[in-house]
Amino acid sequence: MKNQEIVLTGDRPSGPLHLGHYVGSLKNRVILQDQYTQYVMIADVQALTDNFENPQKVSDNVIEVALDYLAVGIDPTKTTIFIQSMIPEIAELTIFYLNLVTVNRLMRNPTIKTEIKMRGFEESIPAGFLMYPVSQAADITIVKGTIIPVGEDQIPVIEQTNEIIRTFNRIYQTNVLVEAKPMLSKVARLVGLDGQDKMSKSLGNAIFLGDSEDVLKKRVMSMYTDSNHLRVQDPGKVEGNVVFTYLDVFDTNVEKLSELKAHYQRGGLGDVVLKNYLFEILNELLTPIREKRKILAQDRSEIMKILLKGTAQVKVIAEKTMNEVRTSLRLNY
Amino acid sequence: MKNQEIVLTGDRPSGPLHLGHYVGSLKNRVILQDQYTQYVMIADVQALTDNFENPQKVSDNVIEVALDYLAVGIDPTKTTIFIQSMIPEIAELTIFYLNLVTVNRLMRNPTIKTEIKMRGFEESIPAGFLMYPVSQAADITIVKGTIIPVGEDQIPVIEQTNEIIRTFNRIYQTNVLVEAKPMLSKVARLVGLDGQDKMSKSLGNAIFLGDSEDVLKKRVMSMYTDSNHLRVQDPGKVEGNVVFTYLDVFDTNVEKLSELKAHYQRGGLGDVVLKNYLFEILNELLTPIREKRKILAQDRSEIMKILLKGTAQVKVIAEKTMNEVRTSLRLNY
Repeated sequence: MKNQEIVLTGDRPSGPLHLGHYVGSLKNRVILQDQYTQYVMIADVQALTDNFENPQKVSDNVIEVALDYLAVGIDPTKTTIFIQSMIPEIAELTIFYLNLVTVNRLMRNPTIKTEIKMRGFEESIPAGFLMYPVSQAADITIVKGTIIPVGEDQIPVIEQTNEIIRTFNRIYQTNVLVEAKPMLSKVARLVGLDGQDKMSKSLGNAIFLGDSEDVLKKRVMSMYTDSNHLRVQDPGKVEGNVVFTYLDVFDTNVEKLSELKAHYQRGGLGDVVLKNYLFEILNELLTPIREKRKILAQDRSEIMKILLKGTAQVKVIAEKTMNEVRTSLRLNY
Repeated sequence: MKNQEIVLTGDRPSGPLHLGHYVGSLKNRVILQDQYTQYVMIADVQALTDNFENPQKVSDNVIEVALDYLAVGIDPTKTTIFIQSMIPEIAELTIFYLNLVTVNRLMRNPTIKTEIKMRGFEESIPAGFLMYPVSQAADITIVKGTIIPVGEDQIPVIEQTNEIIRTFNRIYQTNVLVEAKPMLSKVARLVGLDGQDKMSKSLGNAIFLGDSEDVLKKRVMSMYTDSNHLRVQDPGKVEGNVVFTYLDVFDTNVEKLSELKAHYQRGGLGDVVLKNYLFEILNELLTPIREKRKILAQDRSEIMKILLKGTAQVKVIAEKTMNEVRTSLRLNY
């Protein structure tokens, strides 16, 4: 028996998914699907908020993201995967929720503030971008999600959602909307190959789940280690060394890892040896994913069928929620 | 044969319609329905942007507004009347359009600036209110409206709509959206009974189309004339005198009106006599409307049927437009 809670997560289809997504979220979804009713949304509408000039990219990546899901073991018989743009009720809910949030409140949302800066939007924030936490509130509530696995940086979005839910239930004297709890991911954001930022498609510092063995090797070899570790015999730094950061996350042999760290710190352990060790571990993890992905990618129409089936299931739930919302808003003519 | 142009107008159902609506818009719609394909939208979603705390009022007034439409002669066999909230495609379009407008641009919209002030929203503008010009762009484009009868104060909203249309067509390399032209109403906004502001439900200075003869008389008798015209024999002012403002609009006997003005100005014409004259004219105009309204109001379910039929017709068109938009956005999976 699954727990009563309803889990919702999702991804913007603006590129294929990477190792950061895997450890931060995908791996966890494979576990959660056995415990909860789980929905995973391919957020194409949200992806357009900062890719509106490139809709083809968003469209193309819907299938890429779905391939990643299935390849890592998200099982469509246990998890309902759906496409956001095919649930118009989310747009309807968003419009009604926009009345319950002030512009100032949206401007003060820390997640949005950071992301506006990241994208250089300061002087000309697209209205759709400013509103996206409201549309996330609609995503969550349309399926009555109660557990939302997120990174720490997304907590303000859940707070915003709950504010909207409370305001809605209070003003319309109802309890049709249910508050959501954030579930923090155990692994903090994975740093990118450069060690500068979190792993991200747009920063070009990512290892993608579909990367070939060759590409994976190249990417591991390009990792930032310690800029003062010039000769093998030199002592090297472990802290801030991306290879060790990754080993901390992916190497299950704790004893060996601890030895390697000591060896590296006293000198005599070369970067190439170390990187080869990490490569082997990552390759072992990624090989079955890569292979499954390759097979699945041979029949993309089959993938689309899975998405359409999941979307049809969500559509039924969305209509039910929307009917309750309409009744609360006295719009049930 | 009707002209190819498509006319869209509408009203927020936040109260029954008044004489200001009649001369500024409704009367014109009765003429336009013979010349063009005409849609009239009961904008319940938009009414919620500044009545979100009172949804019952909005809901109740959907039928009231429809009664006013039919009573003045808007003919559902010539004009398609529909309910905004029942066309979810409008919400979907709004969400996509929000990506194409910056927050700053919305803040600079003169119509919105004025209305924000009017409603005392300065410090806490509901996001839905700020966005409403974008949702109006969706209203217009979902039926491909090309002629939008408006008051002068709404011209910036049409400009905003056309900006969105041009941006959409340019970015998505399409011509599915068609620009709209404002059609200025011949009669400027009718002033309220107090002479202070335009006639408005919320200011309590209105004559409603459904007002009884008694109420009409009371309202005309309460009109502002000339605060220095204390005795019948005193000379009175015509300018700023609400009774004369109304006579200018409603009295078709130009010669008689000109005599009355001269008489009033030289003294000897009392306010009560003048007001009785206006009352007779307004009562002659409003009696058939009031009576038709009364008869129609006896079967509200029949009115709802008319609205649902019109809405079903618009739904077909909305789905067609939305399919074209989806194709442009590469969201046609």
